[in-house]
Amino acid sequence: MNEDTRRKLAAVTTATLTTCLLKRGLRSAWMQNVHPVAPGLPTMVGPAFTLRYIPAREDLDRLEAYADPEHPQRKAIETCPPGHVLVIDARKDARAAAAGDLLITRLMVRGVAGIVTDGGFRDTPAIARLGFPAYHQRPSAPTGPILHHAADLQLPIGCGDVAVYPGDVVVGDGEGVVVLPAHLADELAAEAFEMTAYEDFVAAKLQEGRSLPGLYPASNASRAEFALWRSEQGR
Amino acid sequence: MNEDTRRKLAAVTTATLTTCLLKRGLRSAWMQNVHPVAPGLPTMVGPAFTLRYIPAREDLDRLEAYADPEHPQRKAIETCPPGHVLVIDARKDARAAAAGDLLITRLMVRGVAGIVTDGGFRDTPAIARLGFPAYHQRPSAPTGPILHHAADLQLPIGCGDVAVYPGDVVVGDGEGVVVLPAHLADELAAEAFEMTAYEDFVAAKLQEGRSLPGLYPASNASRAEFALWRSEQGR
Amino acid sequence: MNEDTRRKLAAVTTATLTTCLLKRGLRSAWMQNVHPVAPGLPTMVGPAFTLRYIPAREDLDRLEAYADPEHPQRKAIETCPPGHVLVIDARKDARAAAAGDLLITRLMVRGVAGIVTDGGFRDTPAIARLGFPAYHQRPSAPTGPILHHAADLQLPIGCGDVAVYPGDVVVGDGEGVVVLPAHLADELAAEAFEMTAYEDFVAAKLQEGRSLPGLYPASNASRAEFALWRSEQGR
Amino acid sequence: MNEDTRRKLAAVTTATLTTCLLKRGLRSAWMQNVHPVAPGLPTMVGPAFTLRYIPAREDLDRLEAYADPEHPQRKAIETCPPGHVLVIDARKDARAAAAGDLLITRLMVRGVAGIVTDGGFRDTPAIARLGFPAYHQRPSAPTGPILHHAADLQLPIGCGDVAVYPGDVVVGDGEGVVVLPAHLADELAAEAFEMTAYEDFVAAKLQEGRSLPGLYPASNASRAEFALWRSEQGR
Amino acid sequence: MNEDTRRKLAAVTTATLTTCLLKRGLRSAWMQNVHPVAPGLPTMVGPAFTLRYIPAREDLDRLEAYADPEHPQRKAIETCPPGHVLVIDARKDARAAAAGDLLITRLMVRGVAGIVTDGGFRDTPAIARLGFPAYHQRPSAPTGPILHHAADLQLPIGCGDVAVYPGDVVVGDGEGVVVLPAHLADELAAEAFEMTAYEDFVAAKLQEGRSLPGLYPASNASRAEFALWRSEQGR
Amino acid sequence: MNEDTRRKLAAVTTATLTTCLLKRGLRSAWMQNVHPVAPGLPTMVGPAFTLRYIPAREDLDRLEAYADPEHPQRKAIETCPPGHVLVIDARKDARAAAAGDLLITRLMVRGVAGIVTDGGFRDTPAIARLGFPAYHQRPSAPTGPILHHAADLQLPIGCGDVAVYPGDVVVGDGEGVVVLPAHLADELAAEAFEMTAYEDFVAAKLQEGRSLPGLYPASNASRAEFALWRSEQGR
Repeated sequence: MNEDTRRKLAAVTTATLTTCLLKRGLRSAWMQNVHPVAPGLPTMVGPAFTLRYIPAREDLDRLEAYADPEHPQRKAIETCPPGHVLVIDARKDARAAAAGDLLITRLMVRGVAGIVTDGGFRDTPAIARLGFPAYHQRPSAPTGPILHHAADLQLPIGCGDVAVYPGDVVVGDGEGVVVLPAHLADELAAEAFEMTAYEDFVAAKLQEGRSLPGLYPASNASRAEFALWRSEQGR
Repeated sequence: MNEDTRRKLAAVTTATLTTCLLKRGLRSAWMQNVHPVAPGLPTMVGPAFTLRYIPAREDLDRLEAYADPEHPQRKAIETCPPGHVLVIDARKDARAAAAGDLLITRLMVRGVAGIVTDGGFRDTPAIARLGFPAYHQRPSAPTGPILHHAADLQLPIGCGDVAVYPGDVVVGDGEGVVVLPAHLADELAAEAFEMTAYEDFVAAKLQEGRSLPGLYPASNASRAEFALWRSEQGR
Repeated sequence: MNEDTRRKLAAVTTATLTTCLLKRGLRSAWMQNVHPVAPGLPTMVGPAFTLRYIPAREDLDRLEAYADPEHPQRKAIETCPPGHVLVIDARKDARAAAAGDLLITRLMVRGVAGIVTDGGFRDTPAIARLGFPAYHQRPSAPTGPILHHAADLQLPIGCGDVAVYPGDVVVGDGEGVVVLPAHLADELAAEAFEMTAYEDFVAAKLQEGRSLPGLYPASNASRAEFALWRSEQGR
Repeated sequence: MNEDTRRKLAAVTTATLTTCLLKRGLRSAWMQNVHPVAPGLPTMVGPAFTLRYIPAREDLDRLEAYADPEHPQRKAIETCPPGHVLVIDARKDARAAAAGDLLITRLMVRGVAGIVTDGGFRDTPAIARLGFPAYHQRPSAPTGPILHHAADLQLPIGCGDVAVYPGDVVVGDGEGVVVLPAHLADELAAEAFEMTAYEDFVAAKLQEGRSLPGLYPASNASRAEFALWRSEQGR
Repeated sequence: MNEDTRRKLAAVTTATLTTCLLKRGLRSAWMQNVHPVAPGLPTMVGPAFTLRYIPAREDLDRLEAYADPEHPQRKAIETCPPGHVLVIDARKDARAAAAGDLLITRLMVRGVAGIVTDGGFRDTPAIARLGFPAYHQRPSAPTGPILHHAADLQLPIGCGDVAVYPGDVVVGDGEGVVVLPAHLADELAAEAFEMTAYEDFVAAKLQEGRSLPGLYPASNASRAEFALWRSEQGR
Repeated sequence: MNEDTRRKLAAVTTATLTTCLLKRGLRSAWMQNVHPVAPGLPTMVGPAFTLRYIPAREDLDRLEAYADPEHPQRKAIETCPPGHVLVIDARKDARAAAAGDLLITRLMVRGVAGIVTDGGFRDTPAIARLGFPAYHQRPSAPTGPILHHAADLQLPIGCGDVAVYPGDVVVGDGEGVVVLPAHLADELAAEAFEMTAYEDFVAAKLQEGRSLPGLYPASNASRAEFALWRSEQGR
């Protein structure tokens, strides 16, 4: 993906991006009940690489299945491209793990940008220590085959009630994860970047005691004042 | 599928089949929160033909999309083979419709055996009048594209927390729907058919005032008594 | 409200109306988890008269409070205009009753068109015998003050996750309830009425063995065929 | 239990009983999400006989366990006294069956008054044909040991978020189930019976076009009018 | 509000206050599923200023609406009196934001005591940095008009299943939020303050190895011992 | 319990133990929605001592009841043996507290190993400061008798959808709580301890850039390499 877009997306919030999406009629792009495993990491940005789970069946989903190098979960870990985000459709079911610390360590070492699921991860204290962007519903220690069967890679999926198409741009911050349609990523990044500068200006003015009307949403007067502030700030 | 298997499955309940499945270690084959639209229909039996939904995206999922003959939902309606059951993975979300009466009418006319989803159908009073086996979570009038995007056909899916592989044998009765792994269908049908005969014998004896111990579960004595009863009944 | 609109709305389904609403960008007009108490009644149509509940507080919400003629629930029952639909915001909580058979009998005798809540009614077997349109989440016998405090009348409310403004047109059928913004009611009624005629034509053709493509959604050819069918049917 | 109490309770609704309970400060006596399997049966009345389930463990809960005559579920079926109601604490989990038609047939033949659980029953079409009062959350075909372990009999339990002590009086009607503390059953029955007569009077007057104020809740004038009506009715 | 009451409430926990409320028959005053955005802040105390949301409607709830100075959300931010707590009824729906960091910054600068909703806030990492008491269900980045319509100010509302009347005293600590009826605030504060002193005494004695009986709940002996301890501590 | 088992269990994770349990066919041993009150404490290990709650009834469950030394909750606090874990079945209901900081302080001083419930604790900031292992669903300030009645001790219970028999070995870490059948504790501890050593080896190799295939799951080659690594590490 475009490096300027990546840089700008890394500097904005998922909240701001949802506002830009709503302007385009897109209302359902933020994953519900998907949270960061660890707080305080830099913003995660990257194109989606998708992995789909279906419910497990006891005769098919045994621990032995992981030895197969074609097992889609293991294949995802080894083939998700560097800079991409692995997104796992776990059907919002966190009663057993979607992945654990060893697989996530491997993703990190391979240069992947992050991992997201609407299920749960296991070994979350270890994942938190990795400092790698990981988003899930809640910790879930039970081993995956109790509940999940890894079905396939790189199909459109749902995750946290959001449609995710391979190549969509996934952004994660301290609140959660938003999915940008691939063809809109550049313009959304640009717009959100500008909006963020304005909102930083508003925050500064509010701290000085200014009231909201005329300032937020912007008025012609406030836009002029912002232009001045921005050039003073060298932004 | 084997006609003897079809006939036997049509004569047993989904409850009895779950007992036969548990004997083989299969605990998760009955769909949770999937109910018949109309009561009192004959038991539904047929191999699964699968259709998968993901969450809708406002720019892709518009009413106009249905005009495309390659739209997977429309294609499913026209290509699901006679005698099969169309199973739709709606991610357990019934806030908009998975299908409506016109599509289901077409399925019925084409000789399809039934339709199942873990979402909801619209036009359910009309569907009930069709007398066609249809199973869902609850009535849901809102038009599908508000929530669902039909993604693809004949992949393994989840439905009501059950794994459904194309060709698995789907059985539906007045309580709901069970999914039989294809390779086990014949033996499960035979075993459930025998079990049903025994349970009919038990029910008759209980109505005569017999107590459970020694009768249910079966003892050697009760099995002998059953053999006699069965031959008397000509079953 | 316009009698022609009332007549047309009484002849269409809530499902068809959701399609007409989506064409106008309105996606959230059908109440989730709101069901008819009794099946098989004529379609309910009428402007909304709203009643709002908040959680009860034990010192304020006692059975004695009902003796006050200004109690908003009792006032709603006596002042909801004939032909209107009383819509009660019970915050989707059905653990105690939103209303019971005596109050609903009074509404019926007064000529009110129906009653709707996202909570539950008590005395539902008696309500079902009244033959009066009543929609709720599930039967709930516990007396209302255990949970609900009637706060006020004729404010905008939420009901089943739908915004309801006083005067909006409420339509209920065998599947549930849809809310039409007042200013759109006439055009939605006209459009849905036409759509229903076309869908009846499609249903007839499907029963004759026709396939969906070219028929549903409509094509130029099918529209011509429909025009002929319609005039033959005298509709 | 007192036969006069039994007769009166059989003539009132669970809704009316919740009002009498609230007057005594009891707010949580009606089971949430517990519904009749079949509509239209006479009111169920009887003292509670309790059976408690805990979650199953795969090594302990096998089909073979049912052969043990000391298995608490089987023991409950054979020892619940005639006229009592068997109440099963299934922890509100209906993903597998709490009981099925054969066991319930045996209960019926033994003269038990009814069966209640906050889980689900299997073989519900057959149970509905028995005409025996049975209350549960929803149909659940999977065999019980998948989820439930029968732990013990005649301890205080929870069912549908209600405390049930052995000997409490359980009443079930077309809406659901209420639990009366044993020591209050007689006075609650008497009070509800009187209230029902008054409410029948109110219903008759409402049908004649009377308004609610002064009638419901009762005023001195309406009480006098009721006394007259009642003697005219011979009640 | 009374400064002594404010001071005492700031020194007790919401847990202790629920005990004092239960003594008065009030069982439902603590908000369910409402959590502090940031841990470790001083206890929040202030009278409630209420703001009510209903579900959004796509044609009414657009980003442009915020430019209207009469928009109830914006008006709430500018008019909630210093020392008060803004309480937002978001119908327990956290799928889009009830408010964000800029509005909350303005509240803080204006001297408001805190903000509470049963929905979710956006920009929660920024809110956490403000050090301002904010309570919600969970982070929710999507912009508010996707889901919420701000309807009105200063009406009685529900929040987290609790009735909130304007002027009720709202107290928030590290566990959550309790609502005190205005007329009981002084006596509840006094009682909870005394109870807290006793519980601190109990905690000290437990750390010394004392057992609970005779100490908690208090006995005559322990009350005498407490009096001595308290005077020694100069409390 | 065996000290070697205790030591080994203190050195493994609940995640690893679920894998060992699945090998034995045990799929439901990890408590769902049960979380540590405070992060970063040592792993909790000890045999289960059980306490069972049922729903409260307003006339029985009053604050005065705690003065009875036979009250099962208070008795649990004083009699749970040192080194054991007190497990409270709160029926997954966290709307009022299962226990608070004073009782938990007493448990800690008495040498108990930890406390677990599927409900909620009150005074959680104080509990967090104790540094004592406590696991629950979420903070819940309301006083217990609003919702819970302590029924009895040392019966088999359910907690977080897991069967807990007195004497089962309870292990809690930063993710949650797993329950080991008493007779399997020693072998599970030994197996999980070995597995942990291998997984530490894998983690080290992954950090060096090794890929998963041939390493995880183990191959003959990787097992040989591990043996060498382990002896080098002196483990």
